[in-house]
Amino acid sequence: MRRLFALAAGLAAFSLPAQAAEVTTHTLDNGMDIVVIEDTRAPVVVHMVWYRVGSADEPKGASGIAHFLEHLMFKATDTLESGELSRTVAANGGSDNAFTSYDYTAYFQRVASDRLELMMEMEASRMDGLRLVPEDIPTERDVVIEERNQRTENSPGALFAEQRRAAQFLHHPYRIPIIGWKHEAHNLSLEDANAFYEAHYAPNNAILVVAGDADPAEVIAMAEEHYGVIPLNPAIGPRDRVDEPPQLAERRLVMEDSRVAQPYVIRTYLAPERDPGDQRQAAALTLLAEVLGGASATSVLGQKLEFETQNSIYTSAFYSGLSLDDTTFGLVTVPADGVSLEDAEAALDAAVAEFLEEGVDPDQLERIKMQLRASLIYEADSIQSLARRYGAALTSGLTVADVEAWPDVLQEVTADEIVAAGRAVFDRTQSVTGWLRAPSTGPMSEATQ
Amino acid sequence: MRRLFALAAGLAAFSLPAQAAEVTTHTLDNGMDIVVIEDTRAPVVVHMVWYRVGSADEPKGASGIAHFLEHLMFKATDTLESGELSRTVAANGGSDNAFTSYDYTAYFQRVASDRLELMMEMEASRMDGLRLVPEDIPTERDVVIEERNQRTENSPGALFAEQRRAAQFLHHPYRIPIIGWKHEAHNLSLEDANAFYEAHYAPNNAILVVAGDADPAEVIAMAEEHYGVIPLNPAIGPRDRVDEPPQLAERRLVMEDSRVAQPYVIRTYLAPERDPGDQRQAAALTLLAEVLGGASATSVLGQKLEFETQNSIYTSAFYSGLSLDDTTFGLVTVPADGVSLEDAEAALDAAVAEFLEEGVDPDQLERIKMQLRASLIYEADSIQSLARRYGAALTSGLTVADVEAWPDVLQEVTADEIVAAGRAVFDRTQSVTGWLRAPSTGPMSEATQ
Repeated sequence: MRRLFALAAGLAAFSLPAQAAEVTTHTLDNGMDIVVIEDTRAPVVVHMVWYRVGSADEPKGASGIAHFLEHLMFKATDTLESGELSRTVAANGGSDNAFTSYDYTAYFQRVASDRLELMMEMEASRMDGLRLVPEDIPTERDVVIEERNQRTENSPGALFAEQRRAAQFLHHPYRIPIIGWKHEAHNLSLEDANAFYEAHYAPNNAILVVAGDADPAEVIAMAEEHYGVIPLNPAIGPRDRVDEPPQLAERRLVMEDSRVAQPYVIRTYLAPERDPGDQRQAAALTLLAEVLGGASATSVLGQKLEFETQNSIYTSAFYSGLSLDDTTFGLVTVPADGVSLEDAEAALDAAVAEFLEEGVDPDQLERIKMQLRASLIYEADSIQSLARRYGAALTSGLTVADVEAWPDVLQEVTADEIVAAGRAVFDRTQSVTGWLRAPSTGPMSEATQ
Repeated sequence: MRRLFALAAGLAAFSLPAQAAEVTTHTLDNGMDIVVIEDTRAPVVVHMVWYRVGSADEPKGASGIAHFLEHLMFKATDTLESGELSRTVAANGGSDNAFTSYDYTAYFQRVASDRLELMMEMEASRMDGLRLVPEDIPTERDVVIEERNQRTENSPGALFAEQRRAAQFLHHPYRIPIIGWKHEAHNLSLEDANAFYEAHYAPNNAILVVAGDADPAEVIAMAEEHYGVIPLNPAIGPRDRVDEPPQLAERRLVMEDSRVAQPYVIRTYLAPERDPGDQRQAAALTLLAEVLGGASATSVLGQKLEFETQNSIYTSAFYSGLSLDDTTFGLVTVPADGVSLEDAEAALDAAVAEFLEEGVDPDQLERIKMQLRASLIYEADSIQSLARRYGAALTSGLTVADVEAWPDVLQEVTADEIVAAGRAVFDRTQSVTGWLRAPSTGPMSEATQ
């Protein structure tokens, strides 16, 4: 971690860690991985347990079960009453939460350092001692259904994203919403939850990440005592997922919803993810997203579409390489008043084509690299972000070495590699283009959107 | 079946059964259903065993296993050598085969009536006595892979159909090809085959259909002796399939393949299937497909697009209501030389819209109903088609009563119901529109397709 520190010296404008975090790793005999990120600047610790299971690992017809189980993990265990874990964290001045993604499910608490052992005791209790009762199901299911109503049913953009993902992946489970298809989420049962828990929750499928004011040797000793006694589940093997077949036909979707105030065009392309020991392509795509559609007003799409042609009022490009399997690279344009979705899309394509011809502006690239470097350092100043960085990477098939190499890999990417990555990923046969708009009120409104 | 006979009298131009077939049904104690269709005009019998399992019932990651197992069912059993069943059928002057669909798998032999018992003996042997050995797998898998190469990989239209189906169904397993995704079909194992066989092949998941010169009471007694002794599998319940979530966004696909000589536009809409006791909507859609795009040169699309505007050189509409779950209604137009796919599609949509305004021409409807009536009668003249009609219906959730009611239901459909069925099914949010074409060789060729 010396390198982070050296860079920090050149970036005094940011609020920087006074001391770089040290990362220590260990694996318990029962297969549980441990990552300790020591940062003694404040007497605070973040305690996270990450499971190598997410919505993409769900059984047929039980979509949403990974996320539903995440909710149910706050119910009673052999040693805790329902809700006792969160109440205890709060009573100790801490906060706790959990989250579920396609590839992982994670539970965390942020507390004063001297409460770390209490966290481990409770988290270990729900790793193999969860005791769900039938009454837990209907109430918590209502919570999840309400969550889906709020996040998805009430949002045309979220519904649109679900329909687009189902078209982006022909076969791979990333096509299924994390929160679950509504009709399936409505029918999740105690049996579904227990089966998923038994199949995936065990120390050999978990990663403990502790970040903050904690001595690595003490953390490991404490983990040995609380987690080390939990038997591993020998039935847990590699993830059991289907592979995507060749995508041979460009797909397009049009969704109309009367709640849409601002129509837009979004295109996603199937894209490679960060692979262990092989992150260069993903790094080039990460930079490509910044170059094309980063927040800065100087992004290529912003320049060409918002300023030069004034076709768009907003543009964006997005990519996240943190994924166990192939992910997507996205482009967005929100047309200016009076510009049709068709014209906005054509302008977007023209802008991207122009960019691939012109190549990357060296000054812009330098600026972006400096910003990325700074943001990684800035992020490392939060023990919570840092813990999350390691947890997400390790549950996405990467190693600690990959996480540590990532900032350098990003810096090493050349302008030519960025353009080459763009040419490789912008394959229309592997893409989905979506138009979201309000229903046309008559033949006239079609022309003016 | 008196009605069929009565109708036949009015259609003397067709080659008609001299005597209507009698249908007898029975269920064995072990749950095996029996349908005997007696037709004594020739000393021939068709013996079929239908299983209520198809590709849409396959486990995750083993797409193609239903069809692969169908191939493997010709290998050794407790009492038969590998290949002996087909050799015996041939040695007795008969023919045999099998087929797999989304909802069913069926095995049949056509032989002289006095060989029926031998067929039952052999078919019963492979219902619970299949004994696959490891050597069966690689060779038969190569056969299936070659079948896929011939039927799918070598055909842009077939590859296109796969990509379209994957977009048509967001979640339901009809999205997966019957023959299996190539990468999965390549990896099917002995364990996959045995597991699928054990899970689905049992008398309580089977329907015996015997058609031809066979006495129902004798068939039932014989079936009792050969099939009645096979134990049922109590683990077999209703099909375990996921339901389709709401389809909210119109989808479009463009596939380019240099092997495409003739580009075309194809649109499919999600459509209801024939339901037990409720076949009226499906009957209206069946007639709609005939009215719009039947073989006759007088079809609506043929008239409007091939003759009047000369936009198309070929048009079609297709629908098959025989399906356990929701199926599709399709429209096709092949543009005339110099007409773009875009213009061809617009003309297709305009023709359908015009039709929905104009309604059904009564003379055309009368002609079509007469043709359907005649074709059902004509088809009933073949004991094989008749056996297939019952087997397919019964494995698609229908009853013998539904099969027998179907010709009348078709006749009863009114012109208004056809238009109403069209208005209901032509919902673009539930549709996939596909363009198949050769890659454009440059910007000029785009305009001229």
